[in-house]
Amino acid sequence: MNNEIFLDNSSTTRPYDEVVEYMSSISKDYYGNPSSLHTKGIEAERMVKKARSSIAEALKCDLKEVCFTSGGTESNNLAIRGYLDANRRKGKHIITTKVEHPSVLNVFEYLSNNGYEVDYLGVDEKGLIDLNELEDKLRSDTSLISVIYVNNEVGTIEPINEIVKIKNTKCKDLVIHIDAVQGYGKLEICPKRLGIDLLSLSSHKIHGPKGVGALFVNKSIKINPIIFGGGQESLLRSGTENVPGICGFGMASELTMKGLRINFDKIDEIKRYFLDKIKENIDDFKIISPECSSPYILNVSFKGIKSEVLLHHLELKNIYVSTGSACSSRKNIHSKVLKEMSIDSDYIEGAIRFSFSHTNTKEQMNIVVEEISQILSKIRRKTRSKI
Amino acid sequence: MNNEIFLDNSSTTRPYDEVVEYMSSISKDYYGNPSSLHTKGIEAERMVKKARSSIAEALKCDLKEVCFTSGGTESNNLAIRGYLDANRRKGKHIITTKVEHPSVLNVFEYLSNNGYEVDYLGVDEKGLIDLNELEDKLRSDTSLISVIYVNNEVGTIEPINEIVKIKNTKCKDLVIHIDAVQGYGKLEICPKRLGIDLLSLSSHKIHGPKGVGALFVNKSIKINPIIFGGGQESLLRSGTENVPGICGFGMASELTMKGLRINFDKIDEIKRYFLDKIKENIDDFKIISPECSSPYILNVSFKGIKSEVLLHHLELKNIYVSTGSACSSRKNIHSKVLKEMSIDSDYIEGAIRFSFSHTNTKEQMNIVVEEISQILSKIRRKTRSKI
Repeated sequence: MNNEIFLDNSSTTRPYDEVVEYMSSISKDYYGNPSSLHTKGIEAERMVKKARSSIAEALKCDLKEVCFTSGGTESNNLAIRGYLDANRRKGKHIITTKVEHPSVLNVFEYLSNNGYEVDYLGVDEKGLIDLNELEDKLRSDTSLISVIYVNNEVGTIEPINEIVKIKNTKCKDLVIHIDAVQGYGKLEICPKRLGIDLLSLSSHKIHGPKGVGALFVNKSIKINPIIFGGGQESLLRSGTENVPGICGFGMASELTMKGLRINFDKIDEIKRYFLDKIKENIDDFKIISPECSSPYILNVSFKGIKSEVLLHHLELKNIYVSTGSACSSRKNIHSKVLKEMSIDSDYIEGAIRFSFSHTNTKEQMNIVVEEISQILSKIRRKTRSKI
Repeated sequence: MNNEIFLDNSSTTRPYDEVVEYMSSISKDYYGNPSSLHTKGIEAERMVKKARSSIAEALKCDLKEVCFTSGGTESNNLAIRGYLDANRRKGKHIITTKVEHPSVLNVFEYLSNNGYEVDYLGVDEKGLIDLNELEDKLRSDTSLISVIYVNNEVGTIEPINEIVKIKNTKCKDLVIHIDAVQGYGKLEICPKRLGIDLLSLSSHKIHGPKGVGALFVNKSIKINPIIFGGGQESLLRSGTENVPGICGFGMASELTMKGLRINFDKIDEIKRYFLDKIKENIDDFKIISPECSSPYILNVSFKGIKSEVLLHHLELKNIYVSTGSACSSRKNIHSKVLKEMSIDSDYIEGAIRFSFSHTNTKEQMNIVVEEISQILSKIRRKTRSKI
């Protein structure tokens, strides 16, 4: 366990030990149903409120603007479909990008089959959307724009500020949803100051438990639930609250926000160090993540080797990386994001996503570069001898 | 903690200690994302599969017929909306009962506002549906019937076998969904043998974690997802799997199924003992749960006292009961189920739901009856002296 090098933190993270302990004690001591009238229910509800405060504090928003969900995917679904369902009279034109997570792309596909007209914005070689294209695509009947904050495959940070500015100039009435799953706890995000009305979060990307997420919903807008029932979460998300999960998310959020700046700097340094080491020791590679990307993600392609092959070689050495986003990686298809960035298919085939957390160290980077270098020279030698 | 008497087990249960420990170890040791290609992902997926086997074994169904969800509410939503969405060409007529959980009733309300024609079956004074009424309501365009197995407020066990027989005689093509949240782990349920195609389960009602549930989907029928994204759970339920939660549910299910018969007999005995004690020591009460109800639930009304008042008096003595189902109890409205059973409003006001688990004992029943008796005589004396 201890010599494990986990560089797949954009896929999921190991929960903080204190979060796991906390969840255990909540499970045992606050097992009541928050909807119950008695003390056991009220105590459980109080713990949920505490967790809600942690998220609200991090986002600098009101308690009632935080809706807990079962994860980032549900948050994205609830934001987009919930808003459109509650605002059916607004326009039937919606905009997103070609590089969204499947939980946004597939919702847009569903909507395009159910009466909505969708425009998908392309991206440049850095993975950035073209603001002029956005401006051109805006129409008087555009009701919603959904954009990923930090791209999960390459780390590109989309220009949220500029998107809001364009919206405010051209189409004040429309609503912006941001999928901030890869940004929360890594970059500072204050949706209300930014002018964002809907923002999705996930717990297990910040060392919190799986199966929990949240949606920030500006109190000035109305959204409808997508799951019906007992009316929990201010009628927005029915179902008995996952009290231990929500509490674990709250604590993970607090711990993460406390360490945000220090971890950002630490990881930024590790990423730079890692890149320098790659440059020093390895040939024929291409850095796919743009210079200005989140320090937490580095996508690099190594020529002449399929990424799955490299991944499996590395796992033998206890090093865990990804070939793309985990949600797509089992499907054995080439990354759509990389294609949209016009990366040569040669490079797409060899693309590896390294994604970092505060638990990684420079020493680990030395080991990883050494292992990649050895594997590459072995495989490239074989390939050459075959030719 | 130790002298706590929790009699609100239909609302939620305290998780087994071993389940809490297991989830902690899964959280730490199997933290990978099951969608990841590397060992950490494959190991996590294996643990999910193990849990799936536990549920499949309990239901005597195939592994691929178990879809994990975020809970009973989502299972009910997915079953009903997912089936209808995938079978739009089937009839637009659907049937349910007036005594369903809100996660079924509110889905039917949504559907009745969206093109479906709904019939709601009434119940008799025992809470049982009228099979003749069902037969009368069946039409050639009826596509789905949804019935609660064990009523969450009074414990009535609906005649599933008879419902299936009627379906088979009159309308073979329609699909039956059973909300088995209060039945699973308490009564034996084998959906395939029964002829049930969709069956909802919840983990936290059987001493498993909150935030997890499952839906049995007979492989012969097609349902569509209601949450879109990465296509987890065989495309039926997107979102990173809640690995520790799912594993906890699997273990809770195994432990519960192992003890099913012993616990059933134990609780049946406790319920009878409790009833005898009530009869011996208390006047002016009405047993609302029918004789043939699940031993796990006993609804009793005490005349001359509002149930909230009794509930709060009892909680001062560390005894936790419910005034109805937890999902509705905060709404301060009279129980719809009891109204449908034609219970006098005098009795509805004083109705208390005692719901048991294997952790309860006869000694606890002595204490509870003693406390109720004391509180009642105090309050009834006060009321009389006021008159």
